[in-house]
Amino acid sequence: MSLNNLGVVKRNIVRTERAVVERLANFGVATVHEAMGRVGLMKPYLRPIYPGAQLCGSAVTVLMQPGDNWMLHVAAEQLREGDVVVAACTADSEDGFFGELLATSFRARGGRGLVIDGGARDIKELTAIRFPVFCRAISAKGTVKASLGSVNIPVVCAGALVNPGDVVLADDDGVVVVPAALAGQVAEAAQVREASEADKRAKLAAGVLGLDMYKMREPLERAGLRYID
Amino acid sequence: MSLNNLGVVKRNIVRTERAVVERLANFGVATVHEAMGRVGLMKPYLRPIYPGAQLCGSAVTVLMQPGDNWMLHVAAEQLREGDVVVAACTADSEDGFFGELLATSFRARGGRGLVIDGGARDIKELTAIRFPVFCRAISAKGTVKASLGSVNIPVVCAGALVNPGDVVLADDDGVVVVPAALAGQVAEAAQVREASEADKRAKLAAGVLGLDMYKMREPLERAGLRYID
Amino acid sequence: MSLNNLGVVKRNIVRTERAVVERLANFGVATVHEAMGRVGLMKPYLRPIYPGAQLCGSAVTVLMQPGDNWMLHVAAEQLREGDVVVAACTADSEDGFFGELLATSFRARGGRGLVIDGGARDIKELTAIRFPVFCRAISAKGTVKASLGSVNIPVVCAGALVNPGDVVLADDDGVVVVPAALAGQVAEAAQVREASEADKRAKLAAGVLGLDMYKMREPLERAGLRYID
Amino acid sequence: MSLNNLGVVKRNIVRTERAVVERLANFGVATVHEAMGRVGLMKPYLRPIYPGAQLCGSAVTVLMQPGDNWMLHVAAEQLREGDVVVAACTADSEDGFFGELLATSFRARGGRGLVIDGGARDIKELTAIRFPVFCRAISAKGTVKASLGSVNIPVVCAGALVNPGDVVLADDDGVVVVPAALAGQVAEAAQVREASEADKRAKLAAGVLGLDMYKMREPLERAGLRYID
Amino acid sequence: MSLNNLGVVKRNIVRTERAVVERLANFGVATVHEAMGRVGLMKPYLRPIYPGAQLCGSAVTVLMQPGDNWMLHVAAEQLREGDVVVAACTADSEDGFFGELLATSFRARGGRGLVIDGGARDIKELTAIRFPVFCRAISAKGTVKASLGSVNIPVVCAGALVNPGDVVLADDDGVVVVPAALAGQVAEAAQVREASEADKRAKLAAGVLGLDMYKMREPLERAGLRYID
Amino acid sequence: MSLNNLGVVKRNIVRTERAVVERLANFGVATVHEAMGRVGLMKPYLRPIYPGAQLCGSAVTVLMQPGDNWMLHVAAEQLREGDVVVAACTADSEDGFFGELLATSFRARGGRGLVIDGGARDIKELTAIRFPVFCRAISAKGTVKASLGSVNIPVVCAGALVNPGDVVLADDDGVVVVPAALAGQVAEAAQVREASEADKRAKLAAGVLGLDMYKMREPLERAGLRYID
Repeated sequence: MSLNNLGVVKRNIVRTERAVVERLANFGVATVHEAMGRVGLMKPYLRPIYPGAQLCGSAVTVLMQPGDNWMLHVAAEQLREGDVVVAACTADSEDGFFGELLATSFRARGGRGLVIDGGARDIKELTAIRFPVFCRAISAKGTVKASLGSVNIPVVCAGALVNPGDVVLADDDGVVVVPAALAGQVAEAAQVREASEADKRAKLAAGVLGLDMYKMREPLERAGLRYID
Repeated sequence: MSLNNLGVVKRNIVRTERAVVERLANFGVATVHEAMGRVGLMKPYLRPIYPGAQLCGSAVTVLMQPGDNWMLHVAAEQLREGDVVVAACTADSEDGFFGELLATSFRARGGRGLVIDGGARDIKELTAIRFPVFCRAISAKGTVKASLGSVNIPVVCAGALVNPGDVVLADDDGVVVVPAALAGQVAEAAQVREASEADKRAKLAAGVLGLDMYKMREPLERAGLRYID
Repeated sequence: MSLNNLGVVKRNIVRTERAVVERLANFGVATVHEAMGRVGLMKPYLRPIYPGAQLCGSAVTVLMQPGDNWMLHVAAEQLREGDVVVAACTADSEDGFFGELLATSFRARGGRGLVIDGGARDIKELTAIRFPVFCRAISAKGTVKASLGSVNIPVVCAGALVNPGDVVLADDDGVVVVPAALAGQVAEAAQVREASEADKRAKLAAGVLGLDMYKMREPLERAGLRYID
Repeated sequence: MSLNNLGVVKRNIVRTERAVVERLANFGVATVHEAMGRVGLMKPYLRPIYPGAQLCGSAVTVLMQPGDNWMLHVAAEQLREGDVVVAACTADSEDGFFGELLATSFRARGGRGLVIDGGARDIKELTAIRFPVFCRAISAKGTVKASLGSVNIPVVCAGALVNPGDVVLADDDGVVVVPAALAGQVAEAAQVREASEADKRAKLAAGVLGLDMYKMREPLERAGLRYID
Repeated sequence: MSLNNLGVVKRNIVRTERAVVERLANFGVATVHEAMGRVGLMKPYLRPIYPGAQLCGSAVTVLMQPGDNWMLHVAAEQLREGDVVVAACTADSEDGFFGELLATSFRARGGRGLVIDGGARDIKELTAIRFPVFCRAISAKGTVKASLGSVNIPVVCAGALVNPGDVVLADDDGVVVVPAALAGQVAEAAQVREASEADKRAKLAAGVLGLDMYKMREPLERAGLRYID
Repeated sequence: MSLNNLGVVKRNIVRTERAVVERLANFGVATVHEAMGRVGLMKPYLRPIYPGAQLCGSAVTVLMQPGDNWMLHVAAEQLREGDVVVAACTADSEDGFFGELLATSFRARGGRGLVIDGGARDIKELTAIRFPVFCRAISAKGTVKASLGSVNIPVVCAGALVNPGDVVLADDDGVVVVPAALAGQVAEAAQVREASEADKRAKLAAGVLGLDMYKMREPLERAGLRYID
C-alpha cells in the first residue's frame, strides 16, 4: 500500500463480464438497489441532465481536483467499449468539468456515459446526442488542467465506494453501484424481485390492500396501532 | 387531548364537499394562494416529478418516521374517491418512500395523487401513468416498515398545517392547503381574482404600465422614489 | 457618489449596440464564458424555468427588497426593445416575484426575458408563451409592493456584477454577463473559439485523444503522472 | 373562521399556568421531546446565539413578512411576565429581524427570550446581556416596517405548530413546543423519565451494556443479526 | 478595459485614509450597514472562526481559483499596515485556503485579518493568536498553487462588490463593505445613529413601547391592523 | 463476498497498533491530511460539538439506518480501550442518534469519542464531561431501535471510506482517516512536515514572503502573472 495514490493511472483493470452488465441493464435502479439489500446507492443529489437518461456499464474511475478536469482527458484513453466513467472530486465542486467535446471523445472510445460528483455543461448539445450524464450541478464554468488526480483507483463518488470494473447503473431514480464480484448474484436477485412485482401490481390494481397482501395487519397491531373514529 | 398521537389512525374524517373541491380544481395554486390572503403555501422545495403534474383533492394525512413508509400502506385503506395523500415526516428524510406499486394501490382506492415531504422513486413509471407526486427529493432508496406513525391527524407538511379533509391543490407553481371551512369562500375569491386578470392581461399586452393600471406612481413618489438621468 | 442608492431610477442608460448583442446571441453561454477568460458567470443555482429557454439582451437592472416586487413594475417603464431585466435582491428571497402578468407587460414594452435572483411563478403560463426566465426558485408565493429598491444601478445578481447596458446571455448552461465595453471583443473571441471547436469535435469523434490533440502527455509526465498495470 | 388571518392581533390568550411552565423549565429539550412521544420539535436549523442559552415560557406568537419586523414591535405590547416570543415568517428569510433594542423592550415587558424562524443581529450585545435567542441565521441586515402580519394566531415555526399560550422550551439541543393542554402531563412524564435515567447512567458507567439493560439481544437475534469473526 | 482580468496584480491602490478607517472601527457592522442605507453587506454564510472576532481595514482584494490559494501568497506582498485581505473565488469552494502560516505572514506585513469566500483551517492556532478570519467553511483540506487569479481588482465576495481600498468591517454580526468614497460620510452617519440609540435603549428599558416611541400606531391602523379579544 | 452486508457484526478486527495511534495523536488534522497527500478527509460539514474537541483512535465502524440508533448499542459491546466509533448512515439523517447515556457507556467500555454522519444531542452534558463528538447536526430528536445495520464493516462516512481498525483523527479543523496499513508511514511524514513548519513560521514572522521562501516568483511569471501600477 502506497502513501499517495494521487497521480496514478491504472491501466489493467478487471471489468465485469459483458453479459452480466447487459443483464443488469434490464432493471431499474430501484430494483437493483433493493436486490442488493439496500446498499450501494449514490446520494440523490446526482440527477440526470435530461429526463429518461440512463446508463449501465463497467466503471472507469477518476479522482479529480476541484475546478480541474485534467484527469477526464487521461481517463478517455483508458475507456473500452461498454465502460462508464465515474468521476469523484477531492472536494465539493460544481464547475462544468464536462461538456460536448469530451462526450464526443468518450463515445468514440466506447464510453456509454458519465457519473460525476461535479458539474457538467453543454446541456443542450449533450441532450441532442443523448449522451447520458448524471451530475450534481449544471454550470457553464470551465475548468483548468493543472493538478493531478488519478484514474482507476477506488473512489468515493456521491457517498458510494466505486472500484474500477464495478457495474454502475443509472436512471431517473438515481445511481447505484454493483461490486463486480456480486454482479451476477444481484442480476439474479433483481430478476426474482421483478417477477414478483407483476403479480403484486395486478393485485393492487384490483383494489387489494398492501396491508393484506404483505400481511401487515398483525405486526401493526402488535406494534400498537390504534384505529379511532 | 392525548399525550401521544403517534400510532393512531382516524377513520372518520370530514372531507371537503366534492363540488367545492372540483371548483377549486379550476384554479392555479398562485391564484388560490392570493385568494386566501397569501397563506397556506407549502415550502417551494416540494416539486412535481414531471412538468405539468397537478392534483386537487381532499387530504388524507399521514405522519411517517424517517426512512419508513409503513403508514402509507395504512393510509391506502382510508382513501376514498377524490382523496389526495399528504405525507409528513417526523424528521427531514429524502428516502424513496413511494413508488409505482403504492401509486397503483392509491389509484385503485380512489387516490388522486401524493404530496410528500420526503422522496419518491419509480419516476419513469409514475410519469408514464401520470400519477401526480409532489416531493422534496427523488431517491431510489427504499424504506423499512418498522415504526408507527399516524393517519388522519393534523400534520405540518413542508411548513404548512394540514388537517384531514382540507383541500390540497398542487401544480407547477407549488402546493397550497385550503382549510375545509374556508374552501367555498376561497373558491369564490379565486373566481373574482381570475376574472379581473383577463382584463389586466389585455391592458398590459397593449402596453399599459402596471404603474398606471395599479396607480402606483403616487405611492412611489410618496415613498421617495427619485428619477435621475 | 451618494450615500444611499436605494430609491433611485436611472432613466438614461447606455445600452450595448444592438448589432453586438445580436452577434453574441449566436453563441452558447459556455463559449462566451470561455471567451471572456472564465469570468462573469452567475452562480449555477439560477436555472431556466423550462428546458431550452434562452435569452440575450441589454440589461435593465433592478434591486428589490425581499418579498417585494414593486421595483419590477417600475422597471417595466424603462424597457426598450431588446432589453433583458436583471433583478437582484438585498437578501436571499425565494418568493414568486414574477409571473405571467408582468411577463405580458415586459414583452409589450420590448423585454426579452428575465434573470432574477429570486423566485418566479405561473410556470405553466410562462412556458406556454415561451417567456424565458432564469430564477433561483419556483414559488407561488406572491409579494408585496411596499419598499423601495432601485432601477438601473449596478447590482450584484447571483454573484456577478451587472451594470445597466451590459449584455446578459442565458441558456441551459447558465447566465453570463458581458460588460458593455467588452462586448465586441468577446463576440470576436467567441467566434474564434467556436470555429476551432468544429475541427476538434471531428478529431475527437474519429478517436483522436485529447491527450494528443491538446499535447498534454508531456506536461502530465512532468507533473509526475505514473501509469501502472 | 375568517378568510384572512393576516393583520390580526389577538389580545386575550390563555397562557399555560405559571407553575407548570416552571416545572417544565427543569428539564432538557431532549427529555421533554421524549416525554411527549417524540413530537413537537422544531427543525434543528434553529440554533442558540451563544452556547448555554436556554429559555422556557408561554408563547406569544408572531407571523412576520420576509425582511419586515413590524409585527415584533406590535408583539412587544402583548408580552406578560414569563412569555416567550415565537416568530414565524411567511417565507424563508434570514434577515436580522431582531437586535438588542428589541431585546431591551421585550425584557422590560417581561419577555424571557425569542425563538425566530429568521435571523438576528447584535449578537455580541445580546450575549452580554444573556438574552436567549434561537434563530436560523445571524445577519446584520436590518428590516423594514411596511407590511402586516399577525400576533397570537397559530403559526408554523421551523416545522412545528405553535398556538399562543403553548409552552416553548429551548436549550443547546433545540426547541420543543408543548401544547398548553398537555403541559402538566408532559411535565409528569418528563419527571418519570429523568428519574429512570440516573439509574441507567450508573449502570452504563459501571460497564453494563445497553444490549443487556434494555434487553435488546433477543429482538436483535430475531431481526436476524449475525455475529461473525 | 481589457478582456481578461485574470493574472493581474495591481500594486498601487488608493487606500481609505487611516483616520477614517479607525473611526469606522468604533462601530458595529449592523450600525454601519444601517448608516449606509442597508446596502453593502456580505451574505450571512460568512462567519467568524471564533466568537468575538472583529476586524476593520482597507481592502486588498484577491480573486482565487477553486482549491488553489496561490494568489494569497501573491497578495501578502501587497499588504500595508492596516490592510485586510478580501478573497473571492471564481466558484464556490470550501477548501482550507488559509491557515496559521499565511496568517503569520499577513500579520508580519501589516495585515489585520481576512475575509474569505472559501474555507480556512488551523482554527485552534488562529484562535490562539487572535487572527480574525471570516469564512464560509472550516476545512483541513489544503489547496494547490497552480492557477492564476488576480490581486487588487474589483471582486464580488459573498455577494458584495469590493474595490481595493474600500473599508471592510466585520464582527459577530457579519461583514460590511464601505466604498472608499463614502467612508467619511458613513462614519458620520453611524455616529449620529449610535448617539440616538442610547436614548432609545433607556426608554425601551423603562417599558416604553416601540409602538409609541417610533409612532407606529397610526400607520399600523392605516395599514388595517385589527385588535381582537 | 456476500450479497448482503446488513445485519452483520464483525467481532475480531485488526486495530492499528496503539503506539502508532498515540504518535498520530500528536498532530493536527490538517498536518496529517497533508502528510497523506491530501486524501482521506471527511466532508467539512462534520463539526465538533464544542470548540477544542479532539480525538484519535482506532475505528469501530457502524452502519445505521435513518432515525434508528440500534446499532450504536450493538457497537458498544465491541469497543476496546482506545477505540473511536465511526457511524455512517444509509441515508442523510440529522436525528439525535447519540446522547449522554450512550457516551457514558462508550467511555466505560474504553471508547474515546464518536464521529457520526448524523445528529447528536445532550450537548450541554457531553460538553461537561468532555466527550468528543463530531457530527453533522445537533438535534433533540430521539431515534427508534427497529432496523438492522452493521458493525465493523467498511463504511463511507461523510464522504470518506473507513475500514474497522483504521486510525481516525479529529480536531477543530475536521476529521481525517488514516488506513491502518499506512499509519506508521503517515506519522513519519507528519513529523517531517511539522518539523519544517517551525522554521517557515519564524521566517514568515520576520517578514520573509512565501513568494520567496517557496520560490514562487519564477513559476508565477511563467504562468503569465502581470504586475501593473
